[in-house]
Amino acid sequence: MSDPALEVRPIGRMRTCFPEKFGIPRQSGLAPLARGVLEFSRDQPADLWRQALLGLDGFSHVWVTFLFHQAIPEGWKSRVRPPRLGGRQKQGVFATRSPHRPNFLGQSLLKLETVSLEPPLVRFSGVDLLDGTPILDLRPFHPDHDLPRGERRDGWISATPEPSLTVSWRRPASEALRKISIPEGMPSYSLEETTELVASLVALDPRPGHLRSRAGGWDMKLLGFDVHFQVADGHAEICAIRSLDSWIRIDPHGSPSDFS
Amino acid sequence: MSDPALEVRPIGRMRTCFPEKFGIPRQSGLAPLARGVLEFSRDQPADLWRQALLGLDGFSHVWVTFLFHQAIPEGWKSRVRPPRLGGRQKQGVFATRSPHRPNFLGQSLLKLETVSLEPPLVRFSGVDLLDGTPILDLRPFHPDHDLPRGERRDGWISATPEPSLTVSWRRPASEALRKISIPEGMPSYSLEETTELVASLVALDPRPGHLRSRAGGWDMKLLGFDVHFQVADGHAEICAIRSLDSWIRIDPHGSPSDFS
Repeated sequence: MSDPALEVRPIGRMRTCFPEKFGIPRQSGLAPLARGVLEFSRDQPADLWRQALLGLDGFSHVWVTFLFHQAIPEGWKSRVRPPRLGGRQKQGVFATRSPHRPNFLGQSLLKLETVSLEPPLVRFSGVDLLDGTPILDLRPFHPDHDLPRGERRDGWISATPEPSLTVSWRRPASEALRKISIPEGMPSYSLEETTELVASLVALDPRPGHLRSRAGGWDMKLLGFDVHFQVADGHAEICAIRSLDSWIRIDPHGSPSDFS
Repeated sequence: MSDPALEVRPIGRMRTCFPEKFGIPRQSGLAPLARGVLEFSRDQPADLWRQALLGLDGFSHVWVTFLFHQAIPEGWKSRVRPPRLGGRQKQGVFATRSPHRPNFLGQSLLKLETVSLEPPLVRFSGVDLLDGTPILDLRPFHPDHDLPRGERRDGWISATPEPSLTVSWRRPASEALRKISIPEGMPSYSLEETTELVASLVALDPRPGHLRSRAGGWDMKLLGFDVHFQVADGHAEICAIRSLDSWIRIDPHGSPSDFS
């Protein structure tokens, strides 16, 4: 049995607050302030998208099918090491949510915030998608279709809660945040919201599972800035916030980990 | 913004008891005896699929991503008439589960029965897929990822229960079923199971919403046979079972609706 290939074409791209993978929550819904704005492709007339969106705003939660586009050049792997298992134990890719899967299809249940029509845009919260992710489809969540019937078994995914850190700010970091502007096209935030977003993402402990026992400094890119934080004994201190633009301009040869 | 197309390639095909669309339950899980067997593509070595399946058998429910391959030649539609609304009212395609959607991607939550390795096969129950459906991906259901957080709104999909019919058999129909053999490659059934499968599918009232008020005869193809049933006043009588092979041989010019 040999199967023909089929072309898929994104309906649009999701602009999110996440310019890179590090820092993206491991599940949708964990960081309610993580926002996404779906911009539709100009390959089709805007009016077609407006019609296709009719009735979607009646639903609170939407399945978003997307491409793990950053994984495509790396290819798929039959066995992967899920972060939830500390990155040490292998599982078959079909038993995981790894991006390195055949066809690189992702599926996230996102909270729908608003549907706008001029231009057609759909705003989501609790997103776990990289900025610019190609989106292939939207469909409403409905319990008749999307809840398992009968008894459930959860395989290797243990009931272990995801890690969390307490978080504090150094004063220069919270002050630097006031001067940051958000890059064009990304979701918009007030200063209070940005502050809460940063803290909530750091609290989710974005460090890879196998490096969580070590104390040290980390950098997370978010919106248009870099967040430098230090972790020790279950506590994270946000030490510095620097605009990605200004950092690149001021210190082109340094590493974001160098400043403190 | 113009987006490049990407090729997807099926990981395999699902053999099911449904040789045609009419009669397929409108949701997965409604007919537990509706079985599916996923056969993997020979484009990749069997050992790669075996590795990719490692750990999947620990889960009771699996998301199956597939192509609505029969809808592809018909194209997608920005607005559709969902059967649940009696086929009369239009909704934007993104607010529905219509097959006529951009990229023709489908997503069903199926109950996993068994994973076999020689050759690699995955058996599911409660399927709502056409025989031969191209499968693109498998991933485990897990409540951390797949349950909405916070309040939920269900849009136009009302709490109206799906229709149901009481069912009886005419004796010649149940006797004819004893002589039916199941086509090669389709899931296997005992006579008792086939009998229950037929009755459970008819009980789900497969008729299009806008024709439910009319009494009349219907034909549903299943495994290798045709089921003829008459509906009136909320009751369905299964009148005749005929092998698709023998029917084609005996009566090449008739319509399945002609016999009674």
